[in-house]
Amino acid sequence: MTRGLFLTFEGPDGSGKSTQVRMLAEHLTQQGYAVLVTREPGGTDIGEQIRSVILRPENTAMAPVTEVLLYAACRAQIVQELIRPALEAGQIVLCDRFLDSSVVYQGYGRGLLDAVNGINAFATDGLAPDLTILLKIGAQAGLARIREKTRDRIESESAAWHEQVYAGYLALEQANPERIRGIDANGSVSEVHDAVLRVVSPLLDASASGAGEAL
Amino acid sequence: MTRGLFLTFEGPDGSGKSTQVRMLAEHLTQQGYAVLVTREPGGTDIGEQIRSVILRPENTAMAPVTEVLLYAACRAQIVQELIRPALEAGQIVLCDRFLDSSVVYQGYGRGLLDAVNGINAFATDGLAPDLTILLKIGAQAGLARIREKTRDRIESESAAWHEQVYAGYLALEQANPERIRGIDANGSVSEVHDAVLRVVSPLLDASASGAGEAL
Repeated sequence: MTRGLFLTFEGPDGSGKSTQVRMLAEHLTQQGYAVLVTREPGGTDIGEQIRSVILRPENTAMAPVTEVLLYAACRAQIVQELIRPALEAGQIVLCDRFLDSSVVYQGYGRGLLDAVNGINAFATDGLAPDLTILLKIGAQAGLARIREKTRDRIESESAAWHEQVYAGYLALEQANPERIRGIDANGSVSEVHDAVLRVVSPLLDASASGAGEAL
Repeated sequence: MTRGLFLTFEGPDGSGKSTQVRMLAEHLTQQGYAVLVTREPGGTDIGEQIRSVILRPENTAMAPVTEVLLYAACRAQIVQELIRPALEAGQIVLCDRFLDSSVVYQGYGRGLLDAVNGINAFATDGLAPDLTILLKIGAQAGLARIREKTRDRIESESAAWHEQVYAGYLALEQANPERIRGIDANGSVSEVHDAVLRVVSPLLDASASGAGEAL
């Protein structure tokens, strides 16, 4: 089976994931690669409907397990409708958040690690990223970049909770040194972009899916 | 722990579940019982938001596993927000559809029995009905009672698919003779109601939660 490359971006809210995803996508496209850019939760029409239920600030009564199941529902949909077909077509898939976000936000943040792992085994159908870029910035520093009035239900959780989530990211990074590559996200946008390219480049050289040009 | 009684109604679309739930609720209320009536998917504000995603006829691209996860998300929410608190308060809970519906519609209907069982172990938190009333009517006869124009995404599936689902119900009934009681739903509304009362009555006599009057 010809297979593309599945790259995910992780990190606290405000760490610059969507900016870095966009810059990497532009770079890869200019190099001649076929690139699919998507995000979680959401990414598909059905997933965006589920996303709006998850993030609606009024939904404060949401049970933690409900939250885990809704994120997993988005994930199942995006894997089957978008990511798997793109990978089978040899494309490079850039996804803004994936399973690791559930592990840290619901697993570490809500104390539901077993449920997250058990449920997501069905949702991902065994699909894991080839590489995950973790944008490292303290939870406080990240949140400070997001205006208070525009925060969604998850972003509105307490600072202590966001610290707990960030500690989850650091634990995951330590446990998965092959897959997860941490990058200091405190620098300028272009400094972080250069660091992302240094991490992604070796995978492109090894991949048979692209236009054959090195970065 | 003082505990109420958890009764669920199952059966094909058009079998008369919601009518029978309403009639039983009226009867029990008149007898002095505290009765909570709810339905799946939905039942809570968050659950109704999820329900509308599940049933929207335009959502034809929904992956089967996504469907399983969304039903389970509704279930987790209704169990934690409504059903458990009501049972702990000693109420009688009547629920129009519950886990058995996922087992037959997604498990038997979509061939996802393992996923349904694995995922719902987290969603129900181990809660099972004390009694399940299965309204038995052929899938065709049930569907014929629903006008074609008003059918949702699930009701719009093929007749053969609905037969397969109904066979699932019969298999469940056979496997759970203590919990699931089948009732012929081809009769008049009041005939079916009388049959429901005959099945429910012994449980009320045994329950310490009600007003103490037998049916």
